[in-house]
Amino acid sequence: MRATRPPVVVVAPDSFKGSLDAPAVCGAVAAGLRRVWPDAEVVAMPIADGGEGTLDAVLAAVGASGRRMHEAVHGAAGDALDAPWGLLDGGGTPTAVIEIATIVGITDGAGTRVPVTRRSTRGVGELIARLLDRGIARFMIGLGGSSTNDGGAGLLAALGLRLLDAAGADVEPTPDGLARVARVDAAALDPRLAQASITIMSDVNNPLCGPRGATAIFGPQKGVGAGNVERLDRVLARFAQLAQSAVGCEVAGKPGAGAAGGLGFALQLAGGRFASGAEVVADLAGLDAALARADWAITGEGRSDAQTLLGKAPWVVARRAASAGVPVTLLSGAIDPAALQALGSTFAGAFALPPGPATLDSCVANAGDWLADRAEQCARLFAAART
Amino acid sequence: MRATRPPVVVVAPDSFKGSLDAPAVCGAVAAGLRRVWPDAEVVAMPIADGGEGTLDAVLAAVGASGRRMHEAVHGAAGDALDAPWGLLDGGGTPTAVIEIATIVGITDGAGTRVPVTRRSTRGVGELIARLLDRGIARFMIGLGGSSTNDGGAGLLAALGLRLLDAAGADVEPTPDGLARVARVDAAALDPRLAQASITIMSDVNNPLCGPRGATAIFGPQKGVGAGNVERLDRVLARFAQLAQSAVGCEVAGKPGAGAAGGLGFALQLAGGRFASGAEVVADLAGLDAALARADWAITGEGRSDAQTLLGKAPWVVARRAASAGVPVTLLSGAIDPAALQALGSTFAGAFALPPGPATLDSCVANAGDWLADRAEQCARLFAAART
Repeated sequence: MRATRPPVVVVAPDSFKGSLDAPAVCGAVAAGLRRVWPDAEVVAMPIADGGEGTLDAVLAAVGASGRRMHEAVHGAAGDALDAPWGLLDGGGTPTAVIEIATIVGITDGAGTRVPVTRRSTRGVGELIARLLDRGIARFMIGLGGSSTNDGGAGLLAALGLRLLDAAGADVEPTPDGLARVARVDAAALDPRLAQASITIMSDVNNPLCGPRGATAIFGPQKGVGAGNVERLDRVLARFAQLAQSAVGCEVAGKPGAGAAGGLGFALQLAGGRFASGAEVVADLAGLDAALARADWAITGEGRSDAQTLLGKAPWVVARRAASAGVPVTLLSGAIDPAALQALGSTFAGAFALPPGPATLDSCVANAGDWLADRAEQCARLFAAART
Repeated sequence: MRATRPPVVVVAPDSFKGSLDAPAVCGAVAAGLRRVWPDAEVVAMPIADGGEGTLDAVLAAVGASGRRMHEAVHGAAGDALDAPWGLLDGGGTPTAVIEIATIVGITDGAGTRVPVTRRSTRGVGELIARLLDRGIARFMIGLGGSSTNDGGAGLLAALGLRLLDAAGADVEPTPDGLARVARVDAAALDPRLAQASITIMSDVNNPLCGPRGATAIFGPQKGVGAGNVERLDRVLARFAQLAQSAVGCEVAGKPGAGAAGGLGFALQLAGGRFASGAEVVADLAGLDAALARADWAITGEGRSDAQTLLGKAPWVVARRAASAGVPVTLLSGAIDPAALQALGSTFAGAFALPPGPATLDSCVANAGDWLADRAEQCARLFAAART
C-alpha cells in the first residue's frame, strides 16, 4: 500500500541562520519533494529555538489557530516601535508568543544606534504589561538575538520594579542607570505576574554573572568593550543582588539567567520557567500528531555538528519521529564530518547542501535552490527504495 | 523478504579523476555501506572509459579470470619499458587488455622528457606484435591519457608499415620523421592484423586532422606550441593520406581517429573498431549478471554534468540497472546543479561529496572519507525507506 499512495512527509526544520528562515526552508524542501511526488502531502512545520524567527515559525506552524498582532512599545534605544506578537487562541487558554529579537534585536539599526550601556529591555516589559491588560495570562517568550545587556532591568521596571539611587530618585533601567542604583523596590511589581504562566524559550545555559555570564560571553558582540566587561558584570551582579532581595528569590546563578543580556534572569524573577524552544514550538505546532500519520520526516538547520544532538531543533524532531516510528532525514547547509557517526545513528541519512567545491558565500546565496535539489534527490532515493 | 536479508549492492563507479581510481572508489563506497549493513553483499565492479586506470579497473572487475602480465617495449621517448597488460582467459577466446597510458602516458616522466615532435607510439605496436606472436587475436585497447601526437605512425611502423623519405630511407615514426615522409609502404604490414579483433575503447569523437583534430584540440596540452599546431596538423594529414592509400581504406575523418594523438586513426587502419570503454568494461566485468540479483546499485565519477548522460560510465551503469529493474544512485565529487534535473530522471538520487563549504583541494584530499560518509548516509536513507 505504501508505494501506491502519495507519501505524507513532515518537514520540520530550524532556520538556516544567515540564509533562510524556517518557513523558507520548508518551502524549498516542499518544492524539491513535489518534483518527485506531485501529489505528496507535505506538512510544513517550521521549528525555532526561541531566537530570531521564532514568531514567524510558530505562526507558520500553527496555521489558522494563530494571529499576528502588534503593540506600540519602546525599542532598546527608547525609540517608538510597533512590536509584533502572536496570539494563539485555538481552543485552550489564549497564549501570547513574544520574540524579544523583534523588540530589542541585535540587527535593529534604531535600537543599536546608542551604546549598549544605554540600551534597555523596557519594551519587552511594556508588551507583557499590555497583554496582561488584555487578560492574557500565558506567555511563550523567545530569547536570543538581543542587543541589550541590562540584566532585564528594563523589563522589570516596565512591570513595576523601582530602581532608585542613593537620593531615592528613579534611575534609568539601563547599564548606565544600574551603575547608580542603591535600592530596588518590588512593592509595585505587577501582581498579575504571580498568576501568569511564562515559558522562556532559549538554549542558552549561562548564568547572569561571572566568567560564563551574560556580559563576559555575549557582551563583546553587543559592543561591550574589553575594558568594560568586568565593571558591567559587577553592575549586573549588584543589581541582581538588590532585585533578588526585593523580590525574595535567587535565580541569578541558574542556567539561562544570562540569556538575552539577563532577560533570562528577569523573566525567572518574574516567575518564568525555561523550556527548550524547539520542544515548545513542536508542541504548539502539533508535531507529534503530524508524525503519527507520516511516512517520512525531514529536518535540518544551517550547520549540524555534535551540538545538534544536545537538544537542537533537529534532535527534538528526530526524537519525536523515532517515537512515532517515522524515519527522519537531516538536510543541513553543512555537516561536520566528525559528527557524522553520531548523527548517523539518529538520522536516516544526513546530507549537506553543496553540489561541489563551494565558498560559504555561495552556499548562503544558493541555499534555497540547493536545498530543493537535495530534498528532491533524497526523495528519489527514498521512492526507489520503497518501491 | 527484502527487508530481512542483507541487501546485495552493486558498486560500479568510474574513477574520480585526480583523487581516487575506480577500485579505490569501490572500496570507499563499500566501507560506507558496511557501516549500515555489516552483512551486505557488496559487488565491486570498477568501470573505466578506456583512459588511465582502465587496466586496473578491468582486472579488478574480472577477478580470477584475469591476470596482469608484462612485456618489454619502448616508451614514447624510446626508453625501455616493462609494459603491463591484462590477459583475460576465463572461458572464451583469450583477450589482451592494453591501456596505452601505461606505455605512452602523459604522466610518464621518462616518455615526456623529449619534445612531443620526437615522441612515438611504437611501443604500443611492439606490444601488439608480441601478443600476436603469443597467439592472441583479441585485443581491447584503451586510448586516452597519451603524451604522443604521431598519428599512430609508431604503432603502425612497429607492425610493419614502412615510412620512407624522398631518398627511400626509413624515417622515424615521430612527428619530426613524418615531416620528411615521402612514401608509405604497407606491403610488410603484419598480416595477422587482418584476422585479429581489435576493440578500441575511447570516448573521444574527434577526427584526426583539422580544427577539431588531434593536434588542434589535444596537441597544446602535450606541448605542441601554438605556432606549431598548423604545421603538425598538415604533417599528420599528409601521413594519413599516404598511409590510407597504402593500406587501401579511409578512416582519418572518422570520429575517434583523433583519439590519443592519432592512435585512433592507426588502430582503425589496422582493423580496429571503436566501442564505449564503459560498455566494454561492463561486459567484461559481467555487470548485467551482477545487477540481475542486486537490490541497489551505486555509480559515480569525479564530476557529473550534462555530459554524463552522453555515454559516460555512470550512464552505462544506469541504463543496465534500469533494464534489470534496480535503482541506481549517483555519488560524484561534484554535480553540476544545472544538470540535476536531467540526472534526476536517470538516477535514484544524485549526491555530491562536500559536507559544507569546501575548496577543490579539500574535496580531492578528502574524497575517500567523504565518499564513504555519503554512501553510508544514502544507505541509511535507503534502509529506512524500505523497512
